[in-house]
Amino acid sequence: MRIPILKLRDCLLVSIQWELDDQTALQFQEDLLHKIHKTSARGVVIDLTSIDFIDSFIAKVLGDVINMSKLMGAKVVITGIQPAVAITLIELGIRLEEVLTALDLEKGLEKLQRELED
Amino acid sequence: MRIPILKLRDCLLVSIQWELDDQTALQFQEDLLHKIHKTSARGVVIDLTSIDFIDSFIAKVLGDVINMSKLMGAKVVITGIQPAVAITLIELGIRLEEVLTALDLEKGLEKLQRELED
Repeated sequence: MRIPILKLRDCLLVSIQWELDDQTALQFQEDLLHKIHKTSARGVVIDLTSIDFIDSFIAKVLGDVINMSKLMGAKVVITGIQPAVAITLIELGIRLEEVLTALDLEKGLEKLQRELED
Repeated sequence: MRIPILKLRDCLLVSIQWELDDQTALQFQEDLLHKIHKTSARGVVIDLTSIDFIDSFIAKVLGDVINMSKLMGAKVVITGIQPAVAITLIELGIRLEEVLTALDLEKGLEKLQRELED
C-alpha cells in the first residue's frame, strides 16, 4: 500500500499516520518525487503529527526525500514533529537545513504559501 | 494499512488512491467517523480521482460512509468521480443524495468552504 499524496493548488500534502516499513518509505520517496515532477508542485507539506517514533532507516529516507525535493525546486515544510522524532533526527545527524517546520498541517500550509508568495 | 485522513481547518481531506480491499474500506469508514467526532469537523472531502473502478462492496461502503457522515453533521464533497465509478454507483442504486461533487480536490474544498459559510 502506498502513502497518498494530495495536490492542493501548487502544493502537495502528505500525512504519514503510521510507522512506515522500509519498502513503503522507499516507495513514498519515489512517488513524491514523481508527483513533484508531474504536477510542477512548488511546495510540499509532510505531516508527521501521528508519528511518535521513527527508526534510523526511515529518518534517513525522510532526510533524503527532503533534500531531493529541494533539488527539484520544491520548498518543504515538515509539520508536527514530536519529541522522540526530533531526538532521532538530530542524534542520527540528519540535517534538515533550511527546512521549514510548523506545529500542524494547517499552519504548515499557511507558512508554505507565505514563502511561495515572496 | 489505513487511509490517512488529513485535517485542514474545519474540514477533513481523504484521497483514495488505490483500489480498496474490503477490510481497508471498513476500517476507513470507522476511522473517518471517529475523526469527525474527535475533530468536530464540519466538512469532508473524499477524492476519488485516482480510482477508475470500484466493486459493489466498496460502492456500498462509500455510500454508507457518506450518509453516516451527514448524520454526524458533516457536509460531504466527493471529487474526481471517473466514468466507470459513476456507472457503478448509479447501477447499484447507491443514492448520493445531496452530496456535493467537484472535479478535483481543490475545487471540492472551495465548494465545501462556500457551503459552510452560508
